[in-house]
Amino acid sequence: MLYKKVFKALSLTSLLLIGTASADEGMWQPHQLQEISGKLKKAGLKLDPTQMENLDQFPMNAIISLGGCTASFLSDKGLVVTNHHCAYGSIQYNSTEKANLLKQGFVAKKMSDELQAAPGSRVYVTESLTNVTDKITGSIAKSVTGKAYFKEIEKNEKVLVQQCETSQDYRCEVYSFHGGLEYFLIKQLAIRDVRLVYAPPSSIGKFGGDTDNWMWPRHTGDWAFYRAYVNKNGKPADYAKDNVPFEPKAFLKVNANGVEENDYVMVLGYPGRTNRYRTAQEVENQFNLVYPTAKRYREEYIDIIKSTASEGSEARIKYESTLAGLANYAKNYGSMIESFHKGDMLARKQQELNELQVWINASKQRKQKYGKTLSELSTLITEGQKNQERDLILSYIGRTNLMGVAKRLYRLANEKNKPSTERKQGYQERDMNRFTQSMERVNRRYDANVDKAVLLHFMAQYADFPASERNTTFDQFFGLDEAFDAKKLAKKLDKMHSETQLDEESVRLAWMNKSVDEFKRSKDPYIQFAVSQFENDQKLEQQAEELAGKLAQIRPQFMNAMIAYKKSKGEPVYADANSSLRITYGNVKGYSPQDGLTATPFTTLEGMLAKYVAGDHEFDLFENIRSAITNKEFGTFKRESLGSVPVNYLSTLDITGGNSGSPTLNGNGEFVGLVFDGVYESIIGDWDYDPKFKRAIHTSAPFMLWTMEHIDGAGNIVDEMTIVK
Amino acid sequence: MLYKKVFKALSLTSLLLIGTASADEGMWQPHQLQEISGKLKKAGLKLDPTQMENLDQFPMNAIISLGGCTASFLSDKGLVVTNHHCAYGSIQYNSTEKANLLKQGFVAKKMSDELQAAPGSRVYVTESLTNVTDKITGSIAKSVTGKAYFKEIEKNEKVLVQQCETSQDYRCEVYSFHGGLEYFLIKQLAIRDVRLVYAPPSSIGKFGGDTDNWMWPRHTGDWAFYRAYVNKNGKPADYAKDNVPFEPKAFLKVNANGVEENDYVMVLGYPGRTNRYRTAQEVENQFNLVYPTAKRYREEYIDIIKSTASEGSEARIKYESTLAGLANYAKNYGSMIESFHKGDMLARKQQELNELQVWINASKQRKQKYGKTLSELSTLITEGQKNQERDLILSYIGRTNLMGVAKRLYRLANEKNKPSTERKQGYQERDMNRFTQSMERVNRRYDANVDKAVLLHFMAQYADFPASERNTTFDQFFGLDEAFDAKKLAKKLDKMHSETQLDEESVRLAWMNKSVDEFKRSKDPYIQFAVSQFENDQKLEQQAEELAGKLAQIRPQFMNAMIAYKKSKGEPVYADANSSLRITYGNVKGYSPQDGLTATPFTTLEGMLAKYVAGDHEFDLFENIRSAITNKEFGTFKRESLGSVPVNYLSTLDITGGNSGSPTLNGNGEFVGLVFDGVYESIIGDWDYDPKFKRAIHTSAPFMLWTMEHIDGAGNIVDEMTIVK
Repeated sequence: MLYKKVFKALSLTSLLLIGTASADEGMWQPHQLQEISGKLKKAGLKLDPTQMENLDQFPMNAIISLGGCTASFLSDKGLVVTNHHCAYGSIQYNSTEKANLLKQGFVAKKMSDELQAAPGSRVYVTESLTNVTDKITGSIAKSVTGKAYFKEIEKNEKVLVQQCETSQDYRCEVYSFHGGLEYFLIKQLAIRDVRLVYAPPSSIGKFGGDTDNWMWPRHTGDWAFYRAYVNKNGKPADYAKDNVPFEPKAFLKVNANGVEENDYVMVLGYPGRTNRYRTAQEVENQFNLVYPTAKRYREEYIDIIKSTASEGSEARIKYESTLAGLANYAKNYGSMIESFHKGDMLARKQQELNELQVWINASKQRKQKYGKTLSELSTLITEGQKNQERDLILSYIGRTNLMGVAKRLYRLANEKNKPSTERKQGYQERDMNRFTQSMERVNRRYDANVDKAVLLHFMAQYADFPASERNTTFDQFFGLDEAFDAKKLAKKLDKMHSETQLDEESVRLAWMNKSVDEFKRSKDPYIQFAVSQFENDQKLEQQAEELAGKLAQIRPQFMNAMIAYKKSKGEPVYADANSSLRITYGNVKGYSPQDGLTATPFTTLEGMLAKYVAGDHEFDLFENIRSAITNKEFGTFKRESLGSVPVNYLSTLDITGGNSGSPTLNGNGEFVGLVFDGVYESIIGDWDYDPKFKRAIHTSAPFMLWTMEHIDGAGNIVDEMTIVK
Repeated sequence: MLYKKVFKALSLTSLLLIGTASADEGMWQPHQLQEISGKLKKAGLKLDPTQMENLDQFPMNAIISLGGCTASFLSDKGLVVTNHHCAYGSIQYNSTEKANLLKQGFVAKKMSDELQAAPGSRVYVTESLTNVTDKITGSIAKSVTGKAYFKEIEKNEKVLVQQCETSQDYRCEVYSFHGGLEYFLIKQLAIRDVRLVYAPPSSIGKFGGDTDNWMWPRHTGDWAFYRAYVNKNGKPADYAKDNVPFEPKAFLKVNANGVEENDYVMVLGYPGRTNRYRTAQEVENQFNLVYPTAKRYREEYIDIIKSTASEGSEARIKYESTLAGLANYAKNYGSMIESFHKGDMLARKQQELNELQVWINASKQRKQKYGKTLSELSTLITEGQKNQERDLILSYIGRTNLMGVAKRLYRLANEKNKPSTERKQGYQERDMNRFTQSMERVNRRYDANVDKAVLLHFMAQYADFPASERNTTFDQFFGLDEAFDAKKLAKKLDKMHSETQLDEESVRLAWMNKSVDEFKRSKDPYIQFAVSQFENDQKLEQQAEELAGKLAQIRPQFMNAMIAYKKSKGEPVYADANSSLRITYGNVKGYSPQDGLTATPFTTLEGMLAKYVAGDHEFDLFENIRSAITNKEFGTFKRESLGSVPVNYLSTLDITGGNSGSPTLNGNGEFVGLVFDGVYESIIGDWDYDPKFKRAIHTSAPFMLWTMEHIDGAGNIVDEMTIVK
C-alpha cells in the first residue's frame, strides 16, 4: 500500500542523485507541465496542460492532501474520496465490539449520521506554491557551514512558515527539491472537522489483506468517503454540530464507464519519497545492509506481537494497524532486495557516476567547480553510515510506545523554555494540536505486554553489539553490560511498566505542561528514562545536524553538476518525490511479471469471487456480494469486452507511497478510479525506474459505483456525485 | 511430475464412472483412432490415423515403456530419451561423493563409457495388444460371486500371462478397462541391459526443484538418455560387455525447430491412472477425507526426514528420492483440494448420477437390467470405506522399509509352497528377478534413525484411534494399548533396529530361500513381526478380495449403463487411464491461471536465468549456461518470435502420471519435445477435465539440442540422432 509518513522538508539522510526519465517516468511539478505539454497531448490529454499548472483551477483545486495520503473532492458539498487504507484509522476509531465498522462497513444515509474522523484527521487544500530558494539559502554567508548552515536553513524555514501561517486555518511547509537545490513554500488550508461518510466492509475495502498487498492480480475495493466541514463562515473550525459542509471551488465528475486498455490516465497527488538519484555507495549500503536488516526486524516484530497478543484479543486489535504497517514494509523491502539482486542497478549507478566524473574532468571550468564534489559527497556519506546499525536497532526499540512518549514530553518541556520560532520543528506552538492528539491516541495502539516483549527482544539483540558501538547512556539506564541478563532486564521492564503512569491519557496530557524540574524530580520510571537520555540525545542530534548542514551544501553542488550533465545529453529532469503535489501520466496497460506470464490490465468480479475463502480474514466475502456475482447482477456497470465489471486495473503511472487515495483521471479530467498500490516487481521503482515492471494498481470507478449501488446501499452518496457516461 | 507406480490390472479400490469428452479431452486407445480420425486430421495430424493403430508401425513402434514412465527411441542404435526424473534413480545409482552425476551431469562420449542403469531398469517394447475379455470373464459361471469371482479373474489372468510369457524376454500383463468391462492382454519385449548415456546436471534437469514442480512458468530441462542393449542374437539379455545396441524397428526424427503457438501436438505414452468416472460418493470421500489426511501425513513424513537426517548427510542423500516423491504428491493433493473447493465437481457428479437413474427408470427394459445397479454399487463403496482411515495410516507406517521387507519375505516363503501359477501376483517365478532387485536396493533408501523416527511418529497417531478401529494383531506385537507410551515404543523400536539383520543385503537375499518354519524359528525381531501379522493380514486380504469380486461384477453393469446413456446423448467415450498405451492430441496453447493473468505458451532462456539464485539447490545454474544466455550464444536454436531459445511450452494435451518421458510429436510424427508435467490448476484433471485449466508442460526440442551442443558437450549424441528442420 502506498501510504507514507509525511516526508520532512529537510531530512537528515536524504542524499539525492539525478537520473534519466524514460517513457511514463516522472512525477512532474505543476510548473513543469508546459515543458512536457506536447508529450501530454500525444499521450491523450484533452485538457489544456497549462490549465493544470494553476492550483486555483480545475482539476488541481479538486485534489487534496490528508497528510500521508491524497484525496479529492467528488461533490460541491465537500465529499472526499480516498483509499480505505487511508481512512482505516477513522473507521477503526469508530468501531466497537458491537458495531464493528471495519468488518461491517458503514454508510451514512444522511449527513447527520456521519461520524467524526479519528483525532488529528485533516483535509489540506493546497492554495499556493512559491519558490523560496532565495529566502532559504540565498542569504546565508559563504563562510557558514555544518551545523550553523543547517540551523540557518531551519531558521529561515521557520520564519517563512510563521509568516505564512496567518491563522490556525493554514498549514505551511517548506519542501526541498533536488536535495536542497530549490525550496518551495506550500500553503494549505487545513480543514479540521472531518467526518466519515462511507466505508465498505473490510472484506471489500481490504480484500486480499497482506497476502495480496503489492500483488497482481488484485481485487480490492480500496475506497472510503469523508466529508470536510467548516463553520458557517466557511472557515476551518473544530468539530461542531452546526458546522456546514465545505464548498470546494471544484470537484471531479465520475465517469461510470471507467477506462479501457491503452486509455490515457493521470494521477494527481502527493507522492512521498523516491530515491532515484542516490549514489552507488548509498545504494549498496541500503540494499546489502539496511533493507535486509530492517526486513528482519520487522518480521521479528510481527512474530512478537502475534505470539504475545492472541488473535481476536483486545491487545491484538490494538496492534492490527501496527502489524499492517510492519508487514507492508517487510514485504516492500523483500521485493526490493529481490529485484536488486536480479538487476544491475548498482553497476549502472556506478557507471553513471564514473561518466559524470569524466564529464566534469573534461572541462577546466567544470573541474574547478565540481572537481572535488563527488569525493566530498562520498566522505560525508561514509560518515553518515558510521553508527547506522546501532541507530537502526535503537530506532526499532524506540518504536515501542512509552519510550517515545516520555522522550517527546521531556523534549517539549525543554523546548518550551524557548520562544516558539526557536524551538525544534514539532515542538512549536503550531504543532501543539497535533502533539496533543498524538498523546490522546497512544492507548489505542498500546498494550504493556506487547510493549515489554518487543523491548526485551530487541534489547537482547542490541546487547550483542560491541561496547564501542553502543549508546552508553542507554546502557547505563537499563544496566546493560557485558553479561546480558534477559531475566534481569525483564524484571526491570516489568517494574517500569507497572510503576509508570504514562499509560494514562490524562497523565500524559498533564506532563505537557510541566517544567524541566518537575521531570527531573519525577519518580515515574519512563520519565526518568527520558531525563537520563536527554543530554546525550542532544549531542547526537547536534552531530547529525553538523553532517546535515555539510550535506545541504555539497548536495546542491552535486545536483547542479548532475543536472547540467543530464541536460548536456538532452535528458529531461524531474525532482525526486518529496510529498509535494505532482502529476504523473501514462496509459492503462498490462505487463509481464516474469517470462511465461502476462498480467492482463483488468480483473473482474468473477476473479474476486474465485479468491473467496469462507471465514478467512483476508478472502472472506459477504453473501450479498457473492450472490450478486454468481447471478451476474451487474446492472449498467458490465463491460462488454470483459463480460463483467472491471474491479482493478493496471497503468504505467509513476507513483509511490503518499499517492494512496489519489484520484485517477482520464484525458478529460474525469474521475476513473483511485490508485492504491503498485505491483510487486515495481517496488524497487522508488530507486530505479523500469518501464517493463513499473505498474500502478487502481480500483475502478465502475466497481466503486456498482458496490455502492448494488451491495452497500450507498446510493445516496452516488446521487450526490455527478456521474457521466 | 508425472511418474507413477505401475497400476495393477485389478485394483481393489478402482471404481469407475464414465464422463463426457470435451475438446482435447481423451486418452485414446490405438484401436479408437479410426473413430476420431476426422478430428485428428482437423486438428493438424498429417500422418494417416489408421497407421497409428498398428503397434508394429511408425510411430507407435518407437514408443516404449520404462514401467511407470514412457520413453521413445531416437536412433537406430537403441538410443532412448525419457525424462530426467524418470532416469533419476539410475543417475543417483551411479553417483558417488567424488563423481556426483546428479549434480554434475554425465555424458558418455562413446558407447563404452555408458553406465549400467539402476538394478531392475527395463525397456519395454509393446509388441501386441489383444482383447481378452471373453477369456477373463466370459467363461465364469453366473453363480460365481465375491471372492470366488475375484479368484477366477485372477486365475484366468495368470493363465493368459503364462501362455504369453514364452521366455523371460517377454513381459505380459492383463489390463482392465472401464472397471472390468473389457480386458486387454499386452505383450512387451523386456530389454534388461539398459545403460545411462547422458543426463544434464540437476541444475538443468531438475531446475526449479520442488518449488517449480507442477508450476508454470517453468524452465526445466527434464530429459535423460538411455540405451537399450541386447545380446548378439538381438535378444534381451543380462548386462554383458559384449552386448550390442538394440535395433528398434523405428525411431523418431527430431525437429530442431520445435513448435509454434497453436501447432498440432500429440503425446503417445502410458498414462497411469485417472478417476474421471467416479461416483459422487467416492469423490466426496476422497476430497474431504482421503486427500487432506494423506497430504498431512506426507508433510509430516517430510518434516521427520528433514529433522532426522540433516542436509548433506549420507542419510539425507538416501532419502532425497523419497522426499521428492512425498513432496510431489503432497503438492498434488494440495492443488486438488484447492480446485475441488473452488469448483462444483461434486454437484455435477451428483447431478449426472441422478440423470442416469432417471434415464434408467424411463425404460422398463433398462430398469430391469440396471434398476438396482447404482444402489448396489453405493453399498459396496460404503463397505470399502469402512476402515479406510486406519488403513491409510497403516499404509504410511508400512512405507518404512524393514517392515515391508520382512512381510514380503515371509509372504514369499508361504507362496513358494504353491505352484508358481497359483501364487499371488508378485510372488510368481516370473517376478523373482524384480523381487531380488528390490531386496538389493533397500539400503540405498534406508537409514535406521529415519525409519525409527517415522514409525514412532505415525504409530503415536495410530494409537489415538479408538480400539474398535485398530488392528489388534499389530497392537499386540508392539504392545500398544490404552496408555500409549512413546518412550516404551521408542525403546522397542531401538531394540528391533539394533537386533535385526534385515538391513544387510546378503541376509535379505538369503531369506528369499528359507522355509516358513525357518521364519517361525527366527529371533530376528522384524521376521517375528512379519510372522505375527501374517494370519491376520491374510484374513484382511480375503475380505478385500470378497469386496473386489463383488465390485468386479457390479462395475461392468454400471459402466454398461453409463456408456449406453452417454451414447444415447451422442457423447464419445474413452476409458480411464490404466497404464496402457494411449494417444492424446491437441495444440500448443497458453491459458489463464486466474483472473488478471495469462500464461503465455513459451518460456525462454532469459527467464531461466532470471530465476537463478547462486548456490540455491533448486535454482542454481552453472557458469557456462549463465554466460551463454547472457551472451546470447543461441546458435541456430534462436526462435525469432521469442528472440531467444524456447525452453518449455504448454499444450492442451490430456496427460497424467505415467506420461512422464512421453515424446511429444508434431503432425508429421517428428519429435518436438518431452512432456514432463502438468500445471498446478490442472492437477484435479485426473478427476475432472476442465479445458480452461488442463495444460501439459513440455521441454522443447530446441532447448534440448541447444543444451547438448552448447552447454553439456553432448554433440556426439546429437550426431547420432536424425535432425530435421
